[in-house]
Amino acid sequence: MELIGKYHFVTESYLLDFRGRVTIPMMGNYMLHAASSHAATRGFGFSDMTEKNTAWVLTRLAMEIYRYPVMSEPVTLYTWIDDVGRLFTQRCFQLTDAADVILAYARSIWGAIDIATRRPTMLDIAALGKYIADRPCPIEKPGKIAAIENESFGIPYQVKYSDLDINGHFNSIKYIEHLLDMFDIGFFRNKEVQRFEISYLSEGMYGMPLTLHKQEMLPDEYALAVCCEGKAICRAKVQFAL
Amino acid sequence: MELIGKYHFVTESYLLDFRGRVTIPMMGNYMLHAASSHAATRGFGFSDMTEKNTAWVLTRLAMEIYRYPVMSEPVTLYTWIDDVGRLFTQRCFQLTDAADVILAYARSIWGAIDIATRRPTMLDIAALGKYIADRPCPIEKPGKIAAIENESFGIPYQVKYSDLDINGHFNSIKYIEHLLDMFDIGFFRNKEVQRFEISYLSEGMYGMPLTLHKQEMLPDEYALAVCCEGKAICRAKVQFAL
Repeated sequence: MELIGKYHFVTESYLLDFRGRVTIPMMGNYMLHAASSHAATRGFGFSDMTEKNTAWVLTRLAMEIYRYPVMSEPVTLYTWIDDVGRLFTQRCFQLTDAADVILAYARSIWGAIDIATRRPTMLDIAALGKYIADRPCPIEKPGKIAAIENESFGIPYQVKYSDLDINGHFNSIKYIEHLLDMFDIGFFRNKEVQRFEISYLSEGMYGMPLTLHKQEMLPDEYALAVCCEGKAICRAKVQFAL
Repeated sequence: MELIGKYHFVTESYLLDFRGRVTIPMMGNYMLHAASSHAATRGFGFSDMTEKNTAWVLTRLAMEIYRYPVMSEPVTLYTWIDDVGRLFTQRCFQLTDAADVILAYARSIWGAIDIATRRPTMLDIAALGKYIADRPCPIEKPGKIAAIENESFGIPYQVKYSDLDINGHFNSIKYIEHLLDMFDIGFFRNKEVQRFEISYLSEGMYGMPLTLHKQEMLPDEYALAVCCEGKAICRAKVQFAL
């Protein structure tokens, strides 16, 4: 089995944003697809985890986009394991266009939880470790994100049916969608998200009284958060560029 | 070229709802994918329309679901043209599982608009008509939906970045998502949407002060609407079954 997974997508017109470009949440969906396919064909996918009463949990994701795919554009997404530890594994992504030009890189960090207790469980380092690939992913790892929940106004948000994933928790891609929706359309008209980074701290559940937070940290750089009763359950950082 | 298009999908775990089933909006996405692929390979797709300064507009969609696809389930979606008139064409869908058991049927009605004026344009009856297939789609056509905007309380809704499609208008699938999100999670826990029907009346734009409406018409049957300043821009009807 190849170390590196290679997945082809063709962007779909009805899933593009108003500029005719793939959105960050859609890039996230491509990555989840590639990650779950890569894992499933190597014996550590969703079903393999379920058999051991465990589940993968995405804890961090950082992506840097050099060019956004446009309509009906065929793209290739490569994914591989970069590192495996006792509690976390790192998975990288590289998105390229048909001429092999690199469009984006991403780094993700995953942990496993016991389905019943929702507590972290140890990873099978031997099983995962044999798939570690030595391929460059030249972007900064997901880092520390400023806590802004006490200094910013929170927009109330109620978790809805469409926000929930198969585990009954807030879908990780939906967090991204709601956080980016805090920006006025003008941001997307004039600028691009050049780097997006998110850190999932605890599970969002139906009925939680959430608030969405946003604060400018530097010109074109924002810290974001989703909070439940003042405590962040998710933090993110977005950098815009012209 | 075959009259009937046949498209294969495998459901993805991270796109399922909290019950582990494909959602109505996701079924809609499968249908849009099939419709746009079917049209594109027969010379009347998105790009062909753009060349003539026109665009397809989905005006109505009705689906009846007998069984929802579950995790990692391979499904096949058939689509064909049922009828073509001067202003509207009807497209049908049939979703089947791996054992050829029918999971759902859907009927959709499409018109074409001039991109510049946003006014309806005539369809090329000869070009489209040669693809009409004689295949049964035994569900009721999209019909009249009760106007409830004056008798129901409207929940304010602001159009966001993620709601916009490539034309800069409210994405037709996002309407469905927001309308279904008005139902408490308990509905989805205990019942299934058995029939969903939507009628798009006018284009939703960024910045419009919208309201979402819901009213029970019969036991387990609801009329829904998206309104702008009291006028419906979209109406829908949902029927739940045990």
